[in-house]
Amino acid sequence: MTTVSEVTLSPREIRNLIRSGKFERPTAGVAPGHVQANLAILPKELSFDFLLFCQRNPKPCPLIEVLEPGQIEVFTTAPKSDIRTDIPLYRVYENGEFTSEISDLQEVWKEDFVSFLLGCSFSFESALITNGIKLPHFENGTNVSMYITNIPTVPAGPFSGPMVVSMRSIPQEKVVRAVQVTSRFPGVHGSPIHIGDPLAIGIHDISKPDFGEPTTIKEGEVPVFWACGVTPQSVAMSSKPPIMITHAPGHMFITDMKDEDYSVL
Amino acid sequence: MTTVSEVTLSPREIRNLIRSGKFERPTAGVAPGHVQANLAILPKELSFDFLLFCQRNPKPCPLIEVLEPGQIEVFTTAPKSDIRTDIPLYRVYENGEFTSEISDLQEVWKEDFVSFLLGCSFSFESALITNGIKLPHFENGTNVSMYITNIPTVPAGPFSGPMVVSMRSIPQEKVVRAVQVTSRFPGVHGSPIHIGDPLAIGIHDISKPDFGEPTTIKEGEVPVFWACGVTPQSVAMSSKPPIMITHAPGHMFITDMKDEDYSVL
Repeated sequence: MTTVSEVTLSPREIRNLIRSGKFERPTAGVAPGHVQANLAILPKELSFDFLLFCQRNPKPCPLIEVLEPGQIEVFTTAPKSDIRTDIPLYRVYENGEFTSEISDLQEVWKEDFVSFLLGCSFSFESALITNGIKLPHFENGTNVSMYITNIPTVPAGPFSGPMVVSMRSIPQEKVVRAVQVTSRFPGVHGSPIHIGDPLAIGIHDISKPDFGEPTTIKEGEVPVFWACGVTPQSVAMSSKPPIMITHAPGHMFITDMKDEDYSVL
Repeated sequence: MTTVSEVTLSPREIRNLIRSGKFERPTAGVAPGHVQANLAILPKELSFDFLLFCQRNPKPCPLIEVLEPGQIEVFTTAPKSDIRTDIPLYRVYENGEFTSEISDLQEVWKEDFVSFLLGCSFSFESALITNGIKLPHFENGTNVSMYITNIPTVPAGPFSGPMVVSMRSIPQEKVVRAVQVTSRFPGVHGSPIHIGDPLAIGIHDISKPDFGEPTTIKEGEVPVFWACGVTPQSVAMSSKPPIMITHAPGHMFITDMKDEDYSVL
C-alpha cells in the first residue's frame, strides 16, 4: 500500500527512496498528478530504428524522453535522477527471453545502452477520473484489460507487429467526454483508437484479454480502446534484441513533469 | 505564378510535374490545404542524434516523416513519391558550406542518406487566415520575418544552438484566437513561443530580421513569435556535417496529408 506520506512526497524524494532500496512496490497512486513513464533500454545499434518506430507510431509509443548512449540522468523531465536505480523493479530480456528481475542496473549497465521513456496511461486516466468517469481497475489497483489487435503498426528497421490496446468500459453518455479529455494528452497515448465493436479491430473475445485482468462491461457501457505502451515492448521483444531492459509491470519511472505539462489545450 | 490548374491538381499530380521538370518554382499556394514539408538529408552516422534532436525540440522540429537509410519513397505521407526528384529545387551543403543548388538528387544520392521531413508554417498560416487573421506576407508571397533568439534548444549529440523564430504581427484583439487556432496543430510548430516584447527572447531590433523580409508592425498590433523550421537546418549546419541536403527556401515537399490530419482537436 502507498502511505499518506508517500502521496505527499515530491517525485525527486520518491526517486531517492527507490534508489536507497526503501520503496520496492508498484508506483500507482504515488506522486499524484506527475507523469510516470514506461522504460525500454536497447543497445545503441538498435536505437535509431527504435526511435524511428516510436516516431512513426506516436499513439502506442509516446516519447517522454530519450537519453544518449550511456547517459544515466533523465535530465529534462527528471533532473538529478539515475535511470539505473530510480525504478523499483526492472526486467532483463536476452534474445527476446525474460532472464531476470532486478532492482538495480548498476552491475549490468553498459556504455552503449540507450534509455527510452514512454508515456503511460496513468496520466490520461487521472483526466478521465477528474471528469467523473469511473475506472474500477484504477481504483482497485488491478491491471487494465489489454488486447492484441489486427491494427498493424508502421514498421521501422527490424521492428514491426500489431498494436496492443487497453480497454476501458465507459457509460454511453460519457463516451464523447472521454474522447475529448484524452485528446488533450497526445503525449500520453491521447484519444482512443476505437470505440465499440471489438471485432472491428480483431478482438474475438472481449472477456479474454491477452494481458492484464478481465473487465466486466455493464449494461449501458461501451468498450473504448486506447493505444497501449505494451506495444513498443512487445514489438521490440519480437525482434529478439541481444539485450533489452524494461520496468517490471506497474513499477514505473516517476518524472518531475505534471500531467498538465502534456496537455495541448 | 501558380496557375488555376495547379491549384486544382492533386499533390501526386504536382509531384509528378515537379519530377518531370515542368514545375521549378516555389510551392506556396500549390495544392492548398495539403501539408508541405521542409527537407533535411543527413548521412546515417548522424541520423540517431538528429532524430533525437527533433524529438527533444518538437516545436521548432515537428517531424512529419523520417525515412530509413537509402529509402527514397515517402511511403506514409506521400505514397509513390521519390524524395530525390519531387522537390523543385534542392541545396547541397558540404562541411557546413553551401556548394550547389540542383533540381534532382539522383546523381548525388547515396545509400546511407536519411531523409527528414519537417512540418512547415504554411499549415498553421492557413488556419490563421481561415480565422480572419490577415498575413500580408502570405498573401503577397514575400517571406516571413525570422530571428535568432536567446532561447536555447535542448542539445543532442553534436547538435545544439539557439531557436530561430518567425514573427507575425497580429491585431491585439486577435492574439488569443491566434494562440487557440495554432495550438490545434502541434505537428506543424503549434502554439506561439512568445507574445509581445522581442527583447524578452533576445531580439534587439525587430525591424532587422536575421532571415526573410522585414515586417511593419502597425498601431494596435502585437508581434507574435512561433518556433521556425529554420532552427533544425541552422543547428545541423553549425555542426558542419560532411554532407547535408535541404530544400531550397520556399521549394517544399508536398505531401498527400491534409492540414486537418495534423489537428489534435
